[in-house]
Amino acid sequence: MITLSGKEFAATIREDVTERAAKLAVDGTPPRLAVVTATDDEASAWYVRSIAKAADKVGIACDVVDLGSTATGPDVVEALTSLSADGAVHGVILQTPLPDGLSVAELAGNIAVRKDVDGSNPTSLGRLAAGLPAFAPATAAAVVALLEHHEVPLEGKHVVVVGRSVVVGKPVAHLLLDRNATVTVCHSRTADLAAVTTTGDVLVAAVGKAGLIKAEHVAEGAVVVDVGTNATADGGLVGDVDPEVAEKAGSLTPVPGGVGPVTTALLLRHTVEAAETAHTVPGRRRQPSWRR
Amino acid sequence: MITLSGKEFAATIREDVTERAAKLAVDGTPPRLAVVTATDDEASAWYVRSIAKAADKVGIACDVVDLGSTATGPDVVEALTSLSADGAVHGVILQTPLPDGLSVAELAGNIAVRKDVDGSNPTSLGRLAAGLPAFAPATAAAVVALLEHHEVPLEGKHVVVVGRSVVVGKPVAHLLLDRNATVTVCHSRTADLAAVTTTGDVLVAAVGKAGLIKAEHVAEGAVVVDVGTNATADGGLVGDVDPEVAEKAGSLTPVPGGVGPVTTALLLRHTVEAAETAHTVPGRRRQPSWRR
Repeated sequence: MITLSGKEFAATIREDVTERAAKLAVDGTPPRLAVVTATDDEASAWYVRSIAKAADKVGIACDVVDLGSTATGPDVVEALTSLSADGAVHGVILQTPLPDGLSVAELAGNIAVRKDVDGSNPTSLGRLAAGLPAFAPATAAAVVALLEHHEVPLEGKHVVVVGRSVVVGKPVAHLLLDRNATVTVCHSRTADLAAVTTTGDVLVAAVGKAGLIKAEHVAEGAVVVDVGTNATADGGLVGDVDPEVAEKAGSLTPVPGGVGPVTTALLLRHTVEAAETAHTVPGRRRQPSWRR
Repeated sequence: MITLSGKEFAATIREDVTERAAKLAVDGTPPRLAVVTATDDEASAWYVRSIAKAADKVGIACDVVDLGSTATGPDVVEALTSLSADGAVHGVILQTPLPDGLSVAELAGNIAVRKDVDGSNPTSLGRLAAGLPAFAPATAAAVVALLEHHEVPLEGKHVVVVGRSVVVGKPVAHLLLDRNATVTVCHSRTADLAAVTTTGDVLVAAVGKAGLIKAEHVAEGAVVVDVGTNATADGGLVGDVDPEVAEKAGSLTPVPGGVGPVTTALLLRHTVEAAETAHTVPGRRRQPSWRR
């Protein structure tokens, strides 16, 4: 079984981002990411700190805009709208969870598409599906980038995606179709999960349930991508794929150290790309390709 | 083999639309659809006339805004923007083909989402995928509506969609996922088409190639939906599904008389819905659910 590590690949991406960020800084327009939060959730706070630290390391400024856990919909709309209009900010992320009753997808519609570096504005997803320029959610982009980095063939192959979330399952399906894969999306309501998942040359597990994917779900020799990051009682991290799958899969992405680091690295790369687009192609913002 | 006709169902939809349009007319706000064209294409002109006629029959006014085959991108943007802002217009369609070099998806981004009755604005597709209110492309909506009308179970079933267009394949996949189906999208680059298509409880053919789907592509007793409308040399219309499939399928939508009439009827229903939303829920346009 081959381990499809994401660590070295993520390091390569971060090196590239560091160079590009430095160049922008020299030009007087250092890249800047804003993360809007509205929660007291500890896991979320930990994640935001890790993003800020990663950004700092590659030379991207990161502002955390904390609206507090009592923030209302209009509060979030105002923050996102004003950051979208702020010429010094290049990437905007709306961190989850949000206060009860607020819809992430609905509110993320207020992030300017050109700054939507984690692809959470529904317009970004629609543009992706329509073949127009847009940022994919970093996790979905990381799945495909990691497969391509390890030279896993996708063209004409059958990829089965378990999970239909708007953050991973759905956008990854569009990215894979774009690479000429045949794509199946299954989920909690799929009648016979193993019957479907064993037909895949590649299996992408993006459910958020520790160990849900067992050996019986995987075809002998298949490539398995584990997108799960489930916290364990002792503070560890486990994937959606049970360790027993290692005996059957041809190759497998580890958790941690697989999709995770690539996701963070791509979020940073998206931010640098957004900054380059904003500053090195004058008038780009007014071009139809970024029209909202 | 059961024939899943769309004619009677379409008539029922049109009756409902007629009543609702009449009610809006009494209230002084008759529903109005605008079709923007920029082509000399004969087939397109025929289709637009058929839409206008169908609209007229149910009491929807239909304006054809012909920009001519020399129209530029900015011409189209201006037309769509001005119709989107016109309070008397409730539905806006951008008809294809467009002059060379113009991107439908890009330009359709200028149709207000609340008036995008044929779901061609990428934002509508993204909202659909994100579970937010939006109009699906009428053809994609017709596939699912026709299946539901004939009480074909979708929950937990495996639906194989052949074709990955942004007009049918992709949106229909999202609509089916939303109904808890397991969905596979295959296409021209799928390695072994028959191996995939025969795994479907339901097969949706949306390729645009006459007779591409043969008996070998269909599981014994499967439900087959034929979305194809291919013109024959003698002026007839044939689907993507070869007649020999009738021997093997459990049920099959005919061409003509299957998905086609339902598509037109749903386009009209979307227009009436858009008019109702605009006029009977004051301030609705300012609500976040229609925010662009």
